[in-house]
Amino acid sequence: MDVIKEALARGKTALTEYQSKQFCAAFGIPVCREAIARDVTAAANAARKIGWPVVLKASGEKLLHKTEVGGIALNLKTEAEVRQAGERLLGIPGCQALLVQEMVAGYRELVCGLVRDDQFGPCVMFGIGGVLTEVFQDVTFRVAPLSSGDARQMIAEIRNRKILESSRGQPAVDIEILAKTLVALGEIGLQYKSVSSVDINPLLIRPDGRPVAVDALVSLESGEKSPAIKPQGKPLSAQTRQQFFTPESVVIIGASGTPGKAGHEVIRNILANDYAGKLYLVSPKGGEILGMPVYPSVADLPEVVDLAVVIIPANLTVSAVRECAAKGIGSIVLAAGGFSEVDQAGERLQQELTEVIRDTGIRVLGPNTSGHTSTPHHFTSTFFPQGKIPRGHISYIAQTGNFATHTMRYIATGENFGVARVVGLGNKIDIGESEILDYYGEDPETKAIFLYLESIKRPRQFLKVARRVSRVKPVIMLKGGSTREGALAAVTHTAALASDERITDGAIRQAGITRISKYSHLFLAAKALTSMPLPRGNRVSFLAPSGAMLVVLSDLCSQELALEVPDLEETTRQRLQEISPAWIRMRNPVDIWPAALTHGIEYGYGEATRAVMEDANIDAVVPILMLSEEVGMPDLNFLVSLAQKYPEKPMYVTFSGEKKLMEEAKAFLEPRGVPTFLLIEEPFEVLSILDRCRRAMERPE
Amino acid sequence: MDVIKEALARGKTALTEYQSKQFCAAFGIPVCREAIARDVTAAANAARKIGWPVVLKASGEKLLHKTEVGGIALNLKTEAEVRQAGERLLGIPGCQALLVQEMVAGYRELVCGLVRDDQFGPCVMFGIGGVLTEVFQDVTFRVAPLSSGDARQMIAEIRNRKILESSRGQPAVDIEILAKTLVALGEIGLQYKSVSSVDINPLLIRPDGRPVAVDALVSLESGEKSPAIKPQGKPLSAQTRQQFFTPESVVIIGASGTPGKAGHEVIRNILANDYAGKLYLVSPKGGEILGMPVYPSVADLPEVVDLAVVIIPANLTVSAVRECAAKGIGSIVLAAGGFSEVDQAGERLQQELTEVIRDTGIRVLGPNTSGHTSTPHHFTSTFFPQGKIPRGHISYIAQTGNFATHTMRYIATGENFGVARVVGLGNKIDIGESEILDYYGEDPETKAIFLYLESIKRPRQFLKVARRVSRVKPVIMLKGGSTREGALAAVTHTAALASDERITDGAIRQAGITRISKYSHLFLAAKALTSMPLPRGNRVSFLAPSGAMLVVLSDLCSQELALEVPDLEETTRQRLQEISPAWIRMRNPVDIWPAALTHGIEYGYGEATRAVMEDANIDAVVPILMLSEEVGMPDLNFLVSLAQKYPEKPMYVTFSGEKKLMEEAKAFLEPRGVPTFLLIEEPFEVLSILDRCRRAMERPE
Repeated sequence: MDVIKEALARGKTALTEYQSKQFCAAFGIPVCREAIARDVTAAANAARKIGWPVVLKASGEKLLHKTEVGGIALNLKTEAEVRQAGERLLGIPGCQALLVQEMVAGYRELVCGLVRDDQFGPCVMFGIGGVLTEVFQDVTFRVAPLSSGDARQMIAEIRNRKILESSRGQPAVDIEILAKTLVALGEIGLQYKSVSSVDINPLLIRPDGRPVAVDALVSLESGEKSPAIKPQGKPLSAQTRQQFFTPESVVIIGASGTPGKAGHEVIRNILANDYAGKLYLVSPKGGEILGMPVYPSVADLPEVVDLAVVIIPANLTVSAVRECAAKGIGSIVLAAGGFSEVDQAGERLQQELTEVIRDTGIRVLGPNTSGHTSTPHHFTSTFFPQGKIPRGHISYIAQTGNFATHTMRYIATGENFGVARVVGLGNKIDIGESEILDYYGEDPETKAIFLYLESIKRPRQFLKVARRVSRVKPVIMLKGGSTREGALAAVTHTAALASDERITDGAIRQAGITRISKYSHLFLAAKALTSMPLPRGNRVSFLAPSGAMLVVLSDLCSQELALEVPDLEETTRQRLQEISPAWIRMRNPVDIWPAALTHGIEYGYGEATRAVMEDANIDAVVPILMLSEEVGMPDLNFLVSLAQKYPEKPMYVTFSGEKKLMEEAKAFLEPRGVPTFLLIEEPFEVLSILDRCRRAMERPE
Repeated sequence: MDVIKEALARGKTALTEYQSKQFCAAFGIPVCREAIARDVTAAANAARKIGWPVVLKASGEKLLHKTEVGGIALNLKTEAEVRQAGERLLGIPGCQALLVQEMVAGYRELVCGLVRDDQFGPCVMFGIGGVLTEVFQDVTFRVAPLSSGDARQMIAEIRNRKILESSRGQPAVDIEILAKTLVALGEIGLQYKSVSSVDINPLLIRPDGRPVAVDALVSLESGEKSPAIKPQGKPLSAQTRQQFFTPESVVIIGASGTPGKAGHEVIRNILANDYAGKLYLVSPKGGEILGMPVYPSVADLPEVVDLAVVIIPANLTVSAVRECAAKGIGSIVLAAGGFSEVDQAGERLQQELTEVIRDTGIRVLGPNTSGHTSTPHHFTSTFFPQGKIPRGHISYIAQTGNFATHTMRYIATGENFGVARVVGLGNKIDIGESEILDYYGEDPETKAIFLYLESIKRPRQFLKVARRVSRVKPVIMLKGGSTREGALAAVTHTAALASDERITDGAIRQAGITRISKYSHLFLAAKALTSMPLPRGNRVSFLAPSGAMLVVLSDLCSQELALEVPDLEETTRQRLQEISPAWIRMRNPVDIWPAALTHGIEYGYGEATRAVMEDANIDAVVPILMLSEEVGMPDLNFLVSLAQKYPEKPMYVTFSGEKKLMEEAKAFLEPRGVPTFLLIEEPFEVLSILDRCRRAMERPE
């Protein structure tokens, strides 16, 4: 637009308020009626056209803080008042003209804007506006371009969303106009690279519910700001995917005969997992390891293998990668550490590696990764002692090697579920989370995807891939990393509130990813998804053996977990009443102990669980078993049968009573497809996560 | 005050705005300068005295919604403007006079007020005010009378407390005046029973930081509202305490020879706990049970016992209690259910019981309680199979019998700590939580107190007792029960926001009680307090074997748990560096794995834990042990020694790796005084609770 070019040509860093609103209006953003007047007569004429009452503002290129110099006159109702106030404003040093505005009624002040983020590029903000914007800090972000669904989602997620409802005789806010405004701000960001930010505050809500920009500031950056959109990564070709996840032949470079050494443990892990492909070992020492011959160098290998696992000191890796490339090997796991995570020398080595990768086209996982695992192919490149890794349909992407090491060990020994693929990304010199997520999205072995990330290598690409994958599979992420608040001295509200954390959080929601904050949920939610479907809604029924649990868990569901504990169908209620003593009025949640005392645990819990599993008002069921030596361990087959009979409805079991029996029940139920949880809050926390997950998968476009 | 009497005499339900502010001002609450004027000349004179600019408001007894009828004129700067606006306002139907006010500058709007709660009596509210008060819902309550400390605490706990800081060139809010205003509102509630509520909104913050009431409404209740202050309960005498908690002789009324029946299991529980006093059995069947003679009736007992445990059908309890009283027995546990919790017949029975108690002066626990436990005296009245209940220094008060039954069973079998006293309150026909809390406060066997309550029997008495006890012992409470929002149609902001939940939450804070929301924390926090002191502050150090855990737990501490992970002292840092490879820069949290790999787990973890335990910047330490078969189970005595060497600093252990070894480590460490937690988040959640607890104990008066 000419106004932008002209302002930049004149060395301006921002448009005037009037220009800013004109610019926004051109994108369909509603702005208040206003006009610029050179003198009081023109102002009076403008006021008549705009309609009474009006606001007069002193306008001048150097007049940035109008309030502080008394440069605003509100609620002027007559020509005389306009003239009087206009004379006064024109007397303020720096005032070059008068801005005449309609005096907009309405008490609901919102804020919206555009910022450019180093990671995600242009981002749109929305939230509670007015002079207290920075006090309330109730804003949310999305990455441009925004779909209409994105805009509606962000509007609905502010804490004080009640402000959008009808109140004090005024109707609900017009969400249609609001959403279009946010989409338009994203468009501005994409079309005008020289617009560094837009700040609309307040976006006032008229008494009829329509939003209108009453003040706006478009900031400019002379010389286009660096696009901040990082280059796309190279997707993994079908061949590369095969080489990493179903390799027919593998070489360990840096094989060792010494137990405990990484170059030895990786061999033992591969053998322990019954890898059926060819396994070659390379070490300058030659000889034999575990009965297998050791080749002195890659060049000596009798064939071109699919995958090389390089476990040697950092300073030797560059030449090892070159040798692999020379041999024609296309894929490498660089398990060695000692690169950019350590020191400057490591940083230089990593730079060298980057160049080799660019020159040779070889694909690399790592360096500084603890490896990856592909159980359907019985393969792992992990060097941390693992034994046989249980196979299942959960796949993990982990920033650090932790998942491929001790947390996998906990899963294998403490929980009864398996994994399909596990990738430790390490320093992401080549392959990053986007490429792996893309693969998991199409991988038939992967039913649900869990990520632990500390950084996102190519944020916009990741967003694009995740938006697609998260519609077809549950994608759950723990994002680690300290938060950085926006610069305190930032001039605009939008910039002041644009923290890394807020923008990343918005982008994760936009990606359809369900974000979690507890490490343990990485395996507790995975366990639930292993044998049970996502809940079709947030309506839970649970059976508890104690009144306190009924009360406490109902509170937890409604106050912290956004789960409903709804009324049951009348037929369900009647069935529950039939099996219970007459003095207790049965309902949801289910006070199960009287029925269990009357009919025994199997019949009491069994009939009640069946009744709520069949209830159309209920999306998930949690029986809380009471276990004690005196009552004896019930035959828990009834729970297994019920889970099989109603495969579309998740059922998780938790416990009260004797610890030893809880462990026994877990060991019985989990291998038979019924997940259990030791603490009574856990199944509800997991249901809450999975309900968010389902909603993310079903989100509108 | 005369104005109240006069208004009530004239049948008014509220004071006018002017009267309301005059009334508040008499209690020292700052109000804006204002005057009532009958005509425009008087208004102009008043305006000159008040100072320009002024606000004019139409005033009339029936003019309640001034804004809606255009009854407010803002920012009048001249006598002419006052006259013009005044003529217009006086023309509004119902306008009897003009209220002339100073136009208060300032953009920070707070709200405060007084309501009368059915449970707690007069309560004071404080929070974010203005027209969006109900949107933000950011308010907090305290029960009158408020101490200065109460007022400061409530001011500091609103979500948007940032509004109180200096901003936009204006200083921080004057907390002194604010606190005095809140204390004064409480005084009004106590002194004027006919004042049903006070609503000050906005309480505007002047540009110099001083709050001032700009609008106020004092509502009246003709005929004093019922005082809403329930009668005090009768405290437990020394004799009653002795009879319940150290009884020398006990009778079971309703003793049974049938295993599984409550009247039998209670006997087995008493025997299993090695009760050393005399145990008598009563049943009309007579005979022998477990080798003990059975008396046909209470009258036949050879002596007056300290305590009777009554386990018979509800309809027989009234006469049983009368027989006990006739025999001279002073204390009874009524284990039977079937009272007000069941039906109307039960309700009538309970009423009869109440009368017997009043007539006889006998003290009763229950009915509908599962009993109580006193391990130092080897006694329990619980009928749920328990076996030997482990002795310790944690005491519980539970609304329902759940704690005395299966949760105690979990504690005894799944955790390694014991209890001192456990009381299931049941229907609280006589003894309630206040009396038991009072006793626990003085009980030398009780080191920390945990409560699970669904209702509070005598709220003001409970508040009084808890305020005292919570200064000397940790008091932690889970409050169950669904929330009820304030009436939507309520006229004032204060009433609209006065939900049971908000008032109860405020009262619990005022009581110095630390509120928790998870059932499991009732035993996880108890375990931590059993062998470790409260942390002296919120500064945590932890040692993790993985980078992901370092990041994730740091995030959790800062974002959700209000725990700091501060810098270490330089000497500590140097010591950590000495035991670690040079390439890693050691700091807090402690990246322990390289040191453990270099020196072995015992030396690596041991030296690092010692260093941070000695660090003056650190209040609590969490070593996260990595356990695997390959590395082998380390000798964990070093953790026991360190815990003993630094008894003033809590140390909790958690794990990564192999489940079986985690259970082994727990079984080794906990009996030796080092609490462990299976999931890595748990020790931090517990530290957060206990830090709140410490702050509550140390709160200013």
